Amino acid sequence: MDFSSDTSAPAHPSVMDALARVNSGQAASYGDDEATARVRARLCELFECDLEIWMVGSGTASNALALSLICPPTSAILCHEEAHIERDERGAPEFFTGGGKLTLLPGENAKITAETLTEALARIDHAFVHETPAVALSLTNLTECGTAYSAEETAQLAGMAHAAGLKTHLDGARLANALAWSGDSPADMTWRAGIDVLSLGLTKAGTPGCEVIILFGDMRARLDALKARAKRAGHMPAKMRFMAAQAEAMLHDGLWLRLAGRANVMAATLAADMLKLDGTRLACPVEGNEVFVHLPDAVASRLSQAGAKFYPWPGGSYRFVCSWATSEDDIAALTSHLNS
Amino acid sequence: MDFSSDTSAPAHPSVMDALARVNSGQAASYGDDEATARVRARLCELFECDLEIWMVGSGTASNALALSLICPPTSAILCHEEAHIERDERGAPEFFTGGGKLTLLPGENAKITAETLTEALARIDHAFVHETPAVALSLTNLTECGTAYSAEETAQLAGMAHAAGLKTHLDGARLANALAWSGDSPADMTWRAGIDVLSLGLTKAGTPGCEVIILFGDMRARLDALKARAKRAGHMPAKMRFMAAQAEAMLHDGLWLRLAGRANVMAATLAADMLKLDGTRLACPVEGNEVFVHLPDAVASRLSQAGAKFYPWPGGSYRFVCSWATSEDDIAALTSHLNS
Amino acid sequence: MDFSSDTSAPAHPSVMDALARVNSGQAASYGDDEATARVRARLCELFECDLEIWMVGSGTASNALALSLICPPTSAILCHEEAHIERDERGAPEFFTGGGKLTLLPGENAKITAETLTEALARIDHAFVHETPAVALSLTNLTECGTAYSAEETAQLAGMAHAAGLKTHLDGARLANALAWSGDSPADMTWRAGIDVLSLGLTKAGTPGCEVIILFGDMRARLDALKARAKRAGHMPAKMRFMAAQAEAMLHDGLWLRLAGRANVMAATLAADMLKLDGTRLACPVEGNEVFVHLPDAVASRLSQAGAKFYPWPGGSYRFVCSWATSEDDIAALTSHLNS
Amino acid sequence: MDFSSDTSAPAHPSVMDALARVNSGQAASYGDDEATARVRARLCELFECDLEIWMVGSGTASNALALSLICPPTSAILCHEEAHIERDERGAPEFFTGGGKLTLLPGENAKITAETLTEALARIDHAFVHETPAVALSLTNLTECGTAYSAEETAQLAGMAHAAGLKTHLDGARLANALAWSGDSPADMTWRAGIDVLSLGLTKAGTPGCEVIILFGDMRARLDALKARAKRAGHMPAKMRFMAAQAEAMLHDGLWLRLAGRANVMAATLAADMLKLDGTRLACPVEGNEVFVHLPDAVASRLSQAGAKFYPWPGGSYRFVCSWATSEDDIAALTSHLNS
Repeated sequence: MDFSSDTSAPAHPSVMDALARVNSGQAASYGDDEATARVRARLCELFECDLEIWMVGSGTASNALALSLICPPTSAILCHEEAHIERDERGAPEFFTGGGKLTLLPGENAKITAETLTEALARIDHAFVHETPAVALSLTNLTECGTAYSAEETAQLAGMAHAAGLKTHLDGARLANALAWSGDSPADMTWRAGIDVLSLGLTKAGTPGCEVIILFGDMRARLDALKARAKRAGHMPAKMRFMAAQAEAMLHDGLWLRLAGRANVMAATLAADMLKLDGTRLACPVEGNEVFVHLPDAVASRLSQAGAKFYPWPGGSYRFVCSWATSEDDIAALTSHLNS
Repeated sequence: MDFSSDTSAPAHPSVMDALARVNSGQAASYGDDEATARVRARLCELFECDLEIWMVGSGTASNALALSLICPPTSAILCHEEAHIERDERGAPEFFTGGGKLTLLPGENAKITAETLTEALARIDHAFVHETPAVALSLTNLTECGTAYSAEETAQLAGMAHAAGLKTHLDGARLANALAWSGDSPADMTWRAGIDVLSLGLTKAGTPGCEVIILFGDMRARLDALKARAKRAGHMPAKMRFMAAQAEAMLHDGLWLRLAGRANVMAATLAADMLKLDGTRLACPVEGNEVFVHLPDAVASRLSQAGAKFYPWPGGSYRFVCSWATSEDDIAALTSHLNS
Repeated sequence: MDFSSDTSAPAHPSVMDALARVNSGQAASYGDDEATARVRARLCELFECDLEIWMVGSGTASNALALSLICPPTSAILCHEEAHIERDERGAPEFFTGGGKLTLLPGENAKITAETLTEALARIDHAFVHETPAVALSLTNLTECGTAYSAEETAQLAGMAHAAGLKTHLDGARLANALAWSGDSPADMTWRAGIDVLSLGLTKAGTPGCEVIILFGDMRARLDALKARAKRAGHMPAKMRFMAAQAEAMLHDGLWLRLAGRANVMAATLAADMLKLDGTRLACPVEGNEVFVHLPDAVASRLSQAGAKFYPWPGGSYRFVCSWATSEDDIAALTSHLNS
Repeated sequence: MDFSSDTSAPAHPSVMDALARVNSGQAASYGDDEATARVRARLCELFECDLEIWMVGSGTASNALALSLICPPTSAILCHEEAHIERDERGAPEFFTGGGKLTLLPGENAKITAETLTEALARIDHAFVHETPAVALSLTNLTECGTAYSAEETAQLAGMAHAAGLKTHLDGARLANALAWSGDSPADMTWRAGIDVLSLGLTKAGTPGCEVIILFGDMRARLDALKARAKRAGHMPAKMRFMAAQAEAMLHDGLWLRLAGRANVMAATLAADMLKLDGTRLACPVEGNEVFVHLPDAVASRLSQAGAKFYPWPGGSYRFVCSWATSEDDIAALTSHLNS
């Protein structure tokens, strides 16, 4: 009954098989191997466009490297006040940008609204040297509350940012879940909606550790700059083929989306079961693999005592996360303790 | 015939088995898992002392994080002018320290001598605010020339550094090879010789990607600072158990030293075979798994044309690197092309 | 009729005389001169304690250097969301700390309340590596709204910060005005109230450009670190005597407080005159040399057309700043245009 | 008999008069004042071209800000191993560039030769991500040994750098002395010789503290970036007119060159007098206002005991610096002690 995070899940067997397969003979180092080239080719297909990639071992590295490409040290990044890059990365964006700032926007369900963004964009004044002007917008999908932006919402916000001269980044640590929820295509949800740089997460999706930074359109020309920054941040592992194998397996034949869809279904089931209980209500809509729910204290205690793992969340709710590995039995075991 | 680097080698099958084994059920994230705890315990045994650890995916990250713990932005690190941290890490030490400087020392065979260090230490003047004073010494063992410091040499240099108030770091990307060469114990070669922080490499030794930062003695108290710095550098992967499994397998039953010893023997064999050829001479003594050798142009061309991979090196020699996976057949294949 | 800022005012004649006087013969460079020593001695008297100092040419440098002494790159500084260090320093704190974060607190009249601080301190969790913990509190007095903290209020907030293990900084760009308002002694308003590092502003007070960083108590031991950071930030001017002369003249015989008191009186007069007008109300209490006032649009336009200089402020009010050089005639000239 | 440095000299009376004159009425802040505009116009005349400027209070700030415009954090700057930016700025270039590296070149008399530069340029390999490629060349004129580059030498080196795609910076802390020595025009010595950014020193020349960063040609478009970086480094003083007045007075009617010429003559006289003494020889040619000379120990001791101030220099010589304020009597007083 471990609902603490999708990061506590194991890797999918297909990924482990791929790791074993790639471990044959010698291979070029530092990303010049064939497996890495295949991942890039596969992503071009999946996203229906030419693109450039770099793979790293953590979501924080993926986000911070991506942001450092679009925000110089004298500038700022607009993001939601609950964004992972603000709350959970120990200042990584500030470190990688060389001291850039995050400008925080409010918004229900951890989503930025067009209204809030309009105001924030209006406040940018490049001529006023004392204030740090925003030059980038970072969205998160799924958000930190487990809610999803649709392709349309993304396109609206990214379009506004572009019109104001900003670049756009998407923290897609759980993008697979958002895609599985909305049914939008990867292309529609990202570059066609105006995303310039994507941090595509595959770790929570079911790999040991693989996150892909994807450069779309004009940003492709920044690949060398990205590699230089990755190298000096220690994010150019020697034996890249072992990271590439993870991505390759995950992106093969839609595995990532099937696993994400399965996790979403488990979360929906869990939410439905919980809502049957008096005094229980959702803190946010469930639009992916996470359930944020207000529970009676007695229930929360009972679940904990029964050995269930989950986190209390700011605002008084509790977070339960399902992963590709969450089974119907896991859900049943948990819900069996809902009623004393 | 790929002698380009030990980074192009595959991982040892035992390590792959360990990866498969650790992939079972859920595990705590971000280094709180049991496998990580076992690695720490194993290293305490191996190094015969209490110590603290953090694991990262690249040698550059390991070195730069380690150095950032012992060198503030206003200070400098003494290192050899050919050190990896100076030549091959794209400014990672400067990035992680926040702008600290590397002060370069000359020395044959990429080794710092007591004489050179004496002079460098004498030049430190903390009272002269305009110059950047050295507060740390970084050694590399094996060096960038494939030569080894003995435990005695290390103790002499580290002792001088300590006496002058400096902290000491050892870049041990190929420490296994140095230990296999010298027969010194891990403890004698490191903390007993005065090393405060060790970057212990296990990737070149035969893992997919695992480097261990080890804090000895007083430095153990800096573990939290190290973790904070690792986190904000994106070097706190969510599913740490997959890194831990690599280390565990490698350190089990002396595997790392056996594999390093085997690579050393292959290099010695290769060097001996090459030296039989007229016009061939070593650029440096072979004290590990690397051969730096001056070859007649015709020979170098012939080897390249035959498909052998190896690098030309500054100074006019060529570098051939053996790994755990280099076989006697590989050596024979190469040497068969030495004579036309 | 220039009420745009106290930074547009000239320097007081006494300060200019002191500059001329100090320009005699040769003097030791980089702060080793006698005038600098005299400033330190004078400040020890004024603040009734032993202290260490460094002088810089801008308030931004003073704040950012001070903060870099008490906040490492992995940590955060609590400050008001309207603080100068957040709004008007183009990311200087992030630059000087090496990527530290500012954690913003709300509060009326740009003042932090004990309630808000209590909550912020309660949220600090050094054990949770993902979030950036606050290690410092920065207050501003006068605040960005021209309001003043009393010595008691300062002591309460600083005491809470100390109890939670934080260091405290006071941005005193307009501390003279706050002291002139409250009648508190410099000592009571700073170190006796628990301030560890003070950025004492003398530029707005009437010098060409002199800001003093003052280290109290334990922080005195950090003088060498401060000098090293000042040097590498280009804030160790060669001919420091010219900065020292400014401070010496300003601190002589209470000149700084008399000038600040005079500016405060001018602001009070201006506010009183404005409030006589229908439709006019203060946005904040006037507790120093700044008036933040809501004006009918027609009045604001009329003043502008008459050549008056002042700034519109976020929230819809207008800011009028008086300086030591603001005369009763200046006030009369402005108020003559209030009524058409 | 203070020959310690030209930084210990007072300011020229004309500059002090200008400071007094500019202190009249209110003026726009942060560089928007008329005096600053006049300095820019005057420099356009003097350098015979359109240019942009920013003024700062120290040479370290001037150099480091200039370099941060032309070297990103992932790149390196070529400079002489004795350059001020390497030896005497406590890591300021590394701080301002965000971790860029200095690549050190040897050369007699602190001058870079075409041969050395050719080799360094040949080593740049942007395709090799592990090494930090140089993207800028920084020259110093006068050099740290008091020697001068001619306009022709500068043009040769800068031309080579440009041909290799590098930008060029000139540390002109003592450019006035170099111009007075060579008779070259400011334009010929800088932008016509291929200099992109100039750090023009006026402090050692005789002001209280004023250094001008000058952007030539394409670099003019970077003025906003420079101002943003200056602001966040605390190098945007509020009352810029007081800095502008210094520059204006110094550049008026050739004062800076006359004062530098005078200092050069004093140095030449001092050198000539010293060389009359047996056992004395110059360590470098005297081409400006600095004398580097080997003296018999007894003579050095005698001078010190007589109260003369001067510095021992690495390599065993002594440095004597003349300034605009050095008089013939000062020289006579010193030389009177040469012979016992």
